Amino acid sequence: MPENSAFKTIVSKRDTRSFTDQPISEETARRIVQAGRMAGSSKNTQPCRFIVIDDPEQIAVIATCGDFAGWLPTAKLAIAVALTDVGTRQEFDAGRAAQNMMVAAWGEGVGSCPVSIHHVECGREKLGLPEDWRVCIVVGFGYRSKPPKSVPEAARLPWDDYVKRNRWS
Amino acid sequence: MPENSAFKTIVSKRDTRSFTDQPISEETARRIVQAGRMAGSSKNTQPCRFIVIDDPEQIAVIATCGDFAGWLPTAKLAIAVALTDVGTRQEFDAGRAAQNMMVAAWGEGVGSCPVSIHHVECGREKLGLPEDWRVCIVVGFGYRSKPPKSVPEAARLPWDDYVKRNRWS
Repeated sequence: MPENSAFKTIVSKRDTRSFTDQPISEETARRIVQAGRMAGSSKNTQPCRFIVIDDPEQIAVIATCGDFAGWLPTAKLAIAVALTDVGTRQEFDAGRAAQNMMVAAWGEGVGSCPVSIHHVECGREKLGLPEDWRVCIVVGFGYRSKPPKSVPEAARLPWDDYVKRNRWS
Repeated sequence: MPENSAFKTIVSKRDTRSFTDQPISEETARRIVQAGRMAGSSKNTQPCRFIVIDDPEQIAVIATCGDFAGWLPTAKLAIAVALTDVGTRQEFDAGRAAQNMMVAAWGEGVGSCPVSIHHVECGREKLGLPEDWRVCIVVGFGYRSKPPKSVPEAARLPWDDYVKRNRWS
């Protein structure tokens, strides 16, 4: 089997909400965004738009629109994923794009976590979205301030609870 | 910058719906599933369950539940992602898990594409899901029979249409 570094990056990735002061270079930020942009989508509809937020004040402002976004201002970079419809397949595609960004980031040592923007109008207004767009998710990025847990699988259900073969039952 | 193979795998990945006869080894299939299992989820709720389908007959059966799944029977492996609720955040998390699986697969040369199961009852029945579960998506996997396009970005909107800085407007 060829070396599959993507696999190693993927399975070692942990959602991170605590970051150091180390800035994220423009080059790294660009690769993160490009990873999201290249995600496939249903019929190639490309439903997502990204608002790349590197202004710390603007990151703090958008944090006020989520109920559990208190950690977000420690992120050096935040990327809001906007959608123009509430179709569930669009949310699925947004998840594909966000995961691409988070895995690409992790591939160069940058941690991340998605955070919900519960207050839809707040998110729309603070980010200047058109009326028919909304924030699906914001992903905060930064270099992690805590070492990863040593037992990578500790926080997951057992394999057999998660995975069935050919039929559920 | 360290080598970021994950990035290269991510941005070169193309959704693939045409596969060779080469089987997918048990080992590779296991890594694909593990990549999905290790995806983060909202509050670590782990909303997804995976039905790993390697029986060609069962793949053909589940293909009948989607309107655009005619290509699915050429896949050597299909993984159905099941959810128990229609909450949009769960669809987002399903997108994260599916993308992890597809990127991990691509990292060892295995192509893939998601396909919708439009007929919900059909999917539930054919896969033997409990009444309160449904198929969110099926991902088909296989070794691709056509070379990737040489112009990787041809099928994406221009960067500036996709990406805004700090605010949309």
